[in-house]
Amino acid sequence: MNRSAYYVGEQSFVVEQSSPEPPGPGQVRIDVAYTGICGTDLHIAHGAMDQRVRVPAVIGHEMSGRIVEVGAGVEGHRVGDPVTVMPLDWCGECPACRAGHSHICHRLNFVGIDSPGSMQQSWTVPARILVPLPADLSLAHAALVEPTAVAVHDVRRSRLAAGEHAVVIGAGPVGLLIGTVAQATGAEVTVLELDPRRRELAAELGLSTVDPSAVDVAGYVQEVTGGAGAEVVFEVSGSAAGVRTATDLLAVRGRLVVVAIHPTPREVDLHRIFWRELEVIGVRVYEHADYVEAVRLVHGGQVPADRLISRIVPLAEVAQAFQALAAGGDVKVLVDCGGNA
Amino acid sequence: MNRSAYYVGEQSFVVEQSSPEPPGPGQVRIDVAYTGICGTDLHIAHGAMDQRVRVPAVIGHEMSGRIVEVGAGVEGHRVGDPVTVMPLDWCGECPACRAGHSHICHRLNFVGIDSPGSMQQSWTVPARILVPLPADLSLAHAALVEPTAVAVHDVRRSRLAAGEHAVVIGAGPVGLLIGTVAQATGAEVTVLELDPRRRELAAELGLSTVDPSAVDVAGYVQEVTGGAGAEVVFEVSGSAAGVRTATDLLAVRGRLVVVAIHPTPREVDLHRIFWRELEVIGVRVYEHADYVEAVRLVHGGQVPADRLISRIVPLAEVAQAFQALAAGGDVKVLVDCGGNA
Ligand SMILES: [Zn+2]
Ligand SMILES: [Zn+2]
Ligand SMILES: [Zn+2]
Ligand SMILES: [Zn+2]
Repeated sequence: MNRSAYYVGEQSFVVEQSSPEPPGPGQVRIDVAYTGICGTDLHIAHGAMDQRVRVPAVIGHEMSGRIVEVGAGVEGHRVGDPVTVMPLDWCGECPACRAGHSHICHRLNFVGIDSPGSMQQSWTVPARILVPLPADLSLAHAALVEPTAVAVHDVRRSRLAAGEHAVVIGAGPVGLLIGTVAQATGAEVTVLELDPRRRELAAELGLSTVDPSAVDVAGYVQEVTGGAGAEVVFEVSGSAAGVRTATDLLAVRGRLVVVAIHPTPREVDLHRIFWRELEVIGVRVYEHADYVEAVRLVHGGQVPADRLISRIVPLAEVAQAFQALAAGGDVKVLVDCGGNA
Repeated sequence: MNRSAYYVGEQSFVVEQSSPEPPGPGQVRIDVAYTGICGTDLHIAHGAMDQRVRVPAVIGHEMSGRIVEVGAGVEGHRVGDPVTVMPLDWCGECPACRAGHSHICHRLNFVGIDSPGSMQQSWTVPARILVPLPADLSLAHAALVEPTAVAVHDVRRSRLAAGEHAVVIGAGPVGLLIGTVAQATGAEVTVLELDPRRRELAAELGLSTVDPSAVDVAGYVQEVTGGAGAEVVFEVSGSAAGVRTATDLLAVRGRLVVVAIHPTPREVDLHRIFWRELEVIGVRVYEHADYVEAVRLVHGGQVPADRLISRIVPLAEVAQAFQALAAGGDVKVLVDCGGNA
């Protein structure tokens, strides 16, 4: 049998049993081991995306598992293979796809939002979205590949180089992963975070931390960069203040990467952008190369998965998991979907 | 004798005679043929930069002329050589200079603003800022090399490629030059301009023009780009509306080049920047390679200098030249400094 957690609206979930869906041509069926919960999932559970997500809906897209059934015509995948997915399905025909940017397809299907996700024991998906995993990678750790791929994409788009200085504004799960990936690139990283618990965790991960309410951040960054400013700032706070701070901190030709979602237009210091020839770079999800690198970093331990996974809950308690995450204090919460038996 | 136009404050100029300044070591003395007037000069004449420009001041930086005297130790330059200058003098020691971005030196001396300029017959400058000109290039046309280098820099920073679509918001002299250079790159160019006279001139230069008060610009750009949007938008209007329009017009991975100076922060649609992975790129002056290309474009006629030079006035009438320019209707006004005799 398959057990699925259905989001039914208003922060409520119902776990129900059904028959597993046999894979059609080009599909595989996966026994899902773990599904991570991210900010987007929280948004959905809070009803913020009810226009896009039709209830009842199985959500979830940060997953790991093993193939248990292979449909007709699928090549290169076998029963028993450990896998994750890159949860993007594109049209292949729109101007974005034709220009080679299919991850920002005009008609992108984000699997787990626009189509059923992985918060269930048995999941049937197109084989084309599979990403193979090393045999010796823990499936719990592998659930961090998707958010790590986000961070890899953001760092890659920033063109951050070894020896450069990066500032990360906001130390939630995405900010911490960006800081970790930036550090693995050989950059010096400073994390700005108001919340002392998050600052503490960032410090445990080996990142320099600053409390922007207590320190003159611009002066601090000037000092640690010999008067130059930071080459890259990642804005992960989603706040107007974060955007303001970001342009102030950047060196000549510095890059501001807009990671957080800013629902309303923000005031941006275009004069500073002109004066220092700054760049602002938008980033969204990931490309295949980011996944390859993310698997490598999680597998190699550069992403400290054990420190980032703060809780693992059984599928039956998914509603409590969302509540705990919304309450704060957790970093990454995984749902045990049963496929790791 | 040397005759110089001194800006003395409050839109007033005084023309005075003095002895020519003999070139010191590393310097040359130039007989100035023409000096163009640009928006920055207009700003200065209107008192907007009185904090930075100490009166009485000889301004002007868009020039052409011939070397008439060479100081000790100057190599590679001879009396009679036609030249222009790249009016930037940098410290060589600050973080920007050390990072190879000396055109945005933290202590940049902009010659003609921060030190005496070329609105005079005889001008003595460091040989290191000279740019040689082809012998058969008209010295009047050569006065357009500096603003053309601005346009070349802006187009180069945009990474505009042949076959891409560029939109230029604002058809003043800088916008027209950007449109011309973008077209020379092999891009399709659409110019947005409210003023019918400026639109007419842009059309005469072979650029497609749109009146944004009469046409749904976003719909128009969608249509001419097959639903993709423009790869590059140059914001040359300096208006809040220009910034708003710019992000709406861009294709996935499109680049918004902030050319105009926005004195106050502007609301920017960061959600659109995220959603389409857009880039915002700051641009300031030029680098040496831009000058080389600008000389080539003016010399080769790709920059239609005769159509852009709307008026040439003698040095004695410099005050009237500024008034005419401020009144509108002119594109590029040159001051005849007497060195073309
Ligand atoms: Zn996610
Ligand atoms: Zn597509
Ligand atoms: Zn100028
Ligand atoms: Zn410098």
